[in-house]
Amino acid sequence: MAASAPRVVIYGGSGALGSVLVKHFKAEQWWVASIGHTHTNEEADCNIVVGGSAGSLVEQEAEVESQLTQILDDSKLDAILCVAGGWAGGSAKAKKFVENSELMCKQSIWSSVIASRIAAKHMKEGGVLVLTGAQAALNGTPGMIGYGMAKACVHQLVRSLAEQKSGMPADSCVAAILPATMDTPMNRKFMPNADQSSWTSLEFVSELLFKWSNNTERPESGSLVQLITKEGQTSLENAK
Amino acid sequence: MAASAPRVVIYGGSGALGSVLVKHFKAEQWWVASIGHTHTNEEADCNIVVGGSAGSLVEQEAEVESQLTQILDDSKLDAILCVAGGWAGGSAKAKKFVENSELMCKQSIWSSVIASRIAAKHMKEGGVLVLTGAQAALNGTPGMIGYGMAKACVHQLVRSLAEQKSGMPADSCVAAILPATMDTPMNRKFMPNADQSSWTSLEFVSELLFKWSNNTERPESGSLVQLITKEGQTSLENAK
Repeated sequence: MAASAPRVVIYGGSGALGSVLVKHFKAEQWWVASIGHTHTNEEADCNIVVGGSAGSLVEQEAEVESQLTQILDDSKLDAILCVAGGWAGGSAKAKKFVENSELMCKQSIWSSVIASRIAAKHMKEGGVLVLTGAQAALNGTPGMIGYGMAKACVHQLVRSLAEQKSGMPADSCVAAILPATMDTPMNRKFMPNADQSSWTSLEFVSELLFKWSNNTERPESGSLVQLITKEGQTSLENAK
Repeated sequence: MAASAPRVVIYGGSGALGSVLVKHFKAEQWWVASIGHTHTNEEADCNIVVGGSAGSLVEQEAEVESQLTQILDDSKLDAILCVAGGWAGGSAKAKKFVENSELMCKQSIWSSVIASRIAAKHMKEGGVLVLTGAQAALNGTPGMIGYGMAKACVHQLVRSLAEQKSGMPADSCVAAILPATMDTPMNRKFMPNADQSSWTSLEFVSELLFKWSNNTERPESGSLVQLITKEGQTSLENAK
């Protein structure tokens, strides 16, 4: 790695979108650290693996922080992209309602809180932090209550972090991407008959987040940027 | 207790607001169950005590559910009022940011999810479920990030539960109260010089929730009802 290579942390770097991001940033000569749940990404310059959903948020953050501090050795990050998270459905009377609500909180809230903490401690001034929300959570989500709740939490977190005295480095940008459905192998497998022309390609998201990381076409800090895909074309629209 | 007495569960029944609610409903001849963290409320007809913030959400819900099922013995609830929760501040660079974020999730999200589950399983048709949000969380909350996040989560949960196929009993009402500051002994102790004429009295909230429970002046299901107090007078205003 060149001493001057810009640095990105990709939280969820072993997932479907995260892997595309790691590849993209590596191809652009960035230094890339991947944080993954139980999996590493061998294309990244270094990996931090956290222990799934075991333990507490405090323990998980301490685990990440101690490894990252050692890896960074006082150097600063240009970008932190949190694309960790998952999906689980269920209304309030679904058998797994409570279990899935807890899982969604861990997957989306925990990773977002830890990414925010990394930004507060290790991001350089003028850096960018991107979290992952969901268009669905802008309204009620009766068939996937835990998912909607957790994503609404992420949206409000972005609003908080974009304000003065939030603890973010000066001149930084905090934004969320709000996908509807992403074109991942898992979604292709489980929704083979869906209208895939409304799914957002991982390459589009990867290009977008690379631009923002590279300080190009960044949205206003605090933006909840909806990825609206129609007939294979994706446009951006900020949620109110 | 009369066989026909209406039944309410007050989640957080040993707290400042919860205690006033228990007293109020008992005076109105309701059957009252209190769910408290580590404390009982001796004025309630029965108590379920959950073990603080230990364990997981799934464990805590199972603990509540097994006790409540036994207590109710197939009878249904008229109202479930969740006024559990707490407050903790901190920006993303505050020493306790992660710890407080986790605590706020447990205090507000866990109790709200469990209350929702109780409603799905044990509330009668036409009953009411009230959760506690916060006016502050309608916008960013940079100085109390964990608190704002958790309350935004509760707001979206209410939106979900109010929709069709959410798992709520037919014709039920789900709403949140969104206080600014409540006139509690703790707030008087820690903010002795604040303008207390803008604080909402516990008696006002108690009277309001009693009316809703009694099927009087209920808001539309899904409402986030702001409690706006000026010069000692409180008015209600739905958030958009």
